[in-house]
Amino acid sequence: MSDYFASRRASIDDYLGHLAGATGAPRPLDAPLRRALASAGKRVRGILTLAVGESVGGRVEKLLPAAASIEMIHASSLVLDDLPAMDDALLRRGAPTLHREFGEDLAILSAVALLNHAYGLVAKAHADCAPRRWPMQQVLQRVVDAVGWDGTIAGEAVDLHPDSYKGNAPLDFDTLEFIHSRKTGALFVAAAAVGGMLGNIHPAPLQRIEVFAKNLGLAFQITDDVLDVTSKPEVLGKDVGKDEQRLTFVKLAGVDGARKLSEELVETSLTAIEPLGAAAKPLRELALLVRDRVR
Amino acid sequence: MSDYFASRRASIDDYLGHLAGATGAPRPLDAPLRRALASAGKRVRGILTLAVGESVGGRVEKLLPAAASIEMIHASSLVLDDLPAMDDALLRRGAPTLHREFGEDLAILSAVALLNHAYGLVAKAHADCAPRRWPMQQVLQRVVDAVGWDGTIAGEAVDLHPDSYKGNAPLDFDTLEFIHSRKTGALFVAAAAVGGMLGNIHPAPLQRIEVFAKNLGLAFQITDDVLDVTSKPEVLGKDVGKDEQRLTFVKLAGVDGARKLSEELVETSLTAIEPLGAAAKPLRELALLVRDRVR
Repeated sequence: MSDYFASRRASIDDYLGHLAGATGAPRPLDAPLRRALASAGKRVRGILTLAVGESVGGRVEKLLPAAASIEMIHASSLVLDDLPAMDDALLRRGAPTLHREFGEDLAILSAVALLNHAYGLVAKAHADCAPRRWPMQQVLQRVVDAVGWDGTIAGEAVDLHPDSYKGNAPLDFDTLEFIHSRKTGALFVAAAAVGGMLGNIHPAPLQRIEVFAKNLGLAFQITDDVLDVTSKPEVLGKDVGKDEQRLTFVKLAGVDGARKLSEELVETSLTAIEPLGAAAKPLRELALLVRDRVR
Repeated sequence: MSDYFASRRASIDDYLGHLAGATGAPRPLDAPLRRALASAGKRVRGILTLAVGESVGGRVEKLLPAAASIEMIHASSLVLDDLPAMDDALLRRGAPTLHREFGEDLAILSAVALLNHAYGLVAKAHADCAPRRWPMQQVLQRVVDAVGWDGTIAGEAVDLHPDSYKGNAPLDFDTLEFIHSRKTGALFVAAAAVGGMLGNIHPAPLQRIEVFAKNLGLAFQITDDVLDVTSKPEVLGKDVGKDEQRLTFVKLAGVDGARKLSEELVETSLTAIEPLGAAAKPLRELALLVRDRVR
């Protein structure tokens, strides 16, 4: 990981760490919130927000609440995905899942609290950055759409109930693309778009960056599918082999096919931002980091 | 119920009904979302938003997205409260609870989706009303705080784990007040405050209205506690007797004591808005409706 990424990741960890130390939540809720906020993630999505925002001249201190909010939304979705009623996972980020440690009720309430708090941070970041081209409502709505009933939550619902998505049609690449463009892609795109909007980006480069983020998000998900069959819990910090009952890119295309597909998606993402020149260097590096996860 | 309330309730139902018919959510998620949006509630909180906003000159069409958002946040909290990991309730608004009808996973995802979507509606309402005195960030933060880790969610967490709230201190009136000022009171106050802010209210009357809403919310909760022991599921449309394992105002003060307490709180709420004159007439009527629930 380059110095840039290490430094941005540290800034995000730091911001979330401070937040974890001062939730003001009552005792039963404080401990699970702290854990969810402070447990070390890769922070890819938050770094994406910072990298895009900085590439158009935004300042990292002012972008940080937005980057943190994206990571909180992601953390919230992980806590929910891991629940007994969903993936029933044991391990996350190298520790017992939140519901195993604090109970299902507090895990659910923590997940909802994280998402909720994130909206305050997006609004704060917008007020701090005050971008002329992008009103606060538009930025918020981007996040709402990415999370909501045609976003991450929709992807998760279809992932859990693929049969009922198209009636009884057989599962296929379309369904898989529907699931992952929402479950993973939507928040990648929103992370990038919010960073750009807060940096007062022009509409044309924003479109390129959205294509970049969409392809990178899908590539990232596919590398996750590959790691689920090729890696170990000790390395990943989360359960592996959980995808057995699920349709995945690996099942459709095999490990090598999935690897190849993720490389192609990374190439597409790089092509999209080629015209953006030197300012997009951190985005290029981020894309290569994703590709190299399964090399 | 007066014509004013019936008409405002119908407007909110109408708004949510349209939303339910066009979620754009994929099949597995669409049905539970429709049910949660369209099931008939009393809409007290949304009416409060409209009544306060209108009392300072706001127009109902422009206030409606905010009133709907408050009702969606409330609906979201009911779905979560009813889950097996929380109250494990069978009946809500005269129908099986969402998790019983659609499964726990889709109930949880629907609840999160409702809260999430509400934030887009608050932002939209603010953009429509464009109040000069109250920036969008401030209005959003009010909602975030009311829901979040010192709001509704905090109240629910302590309600589920009262023993761990103050260590091992005995349960008392303070704890009960902590729970209900957050679990019910916070959203009542935010509903009123958001209506006022969108109507561009002055800070001084807003303070009065917040005192009104705080006391009314607590009175409403106490009447709920009373109805839980004196009413039937067929009448209430939800489980009764669920409070048996819980600390309630009825347990602390008896049915008559709780009734008396709620009347006192309604009096306090009326005193707070006395100086607001004729414009606050719907608020007075609303307070009397709450009082008369258990008369």
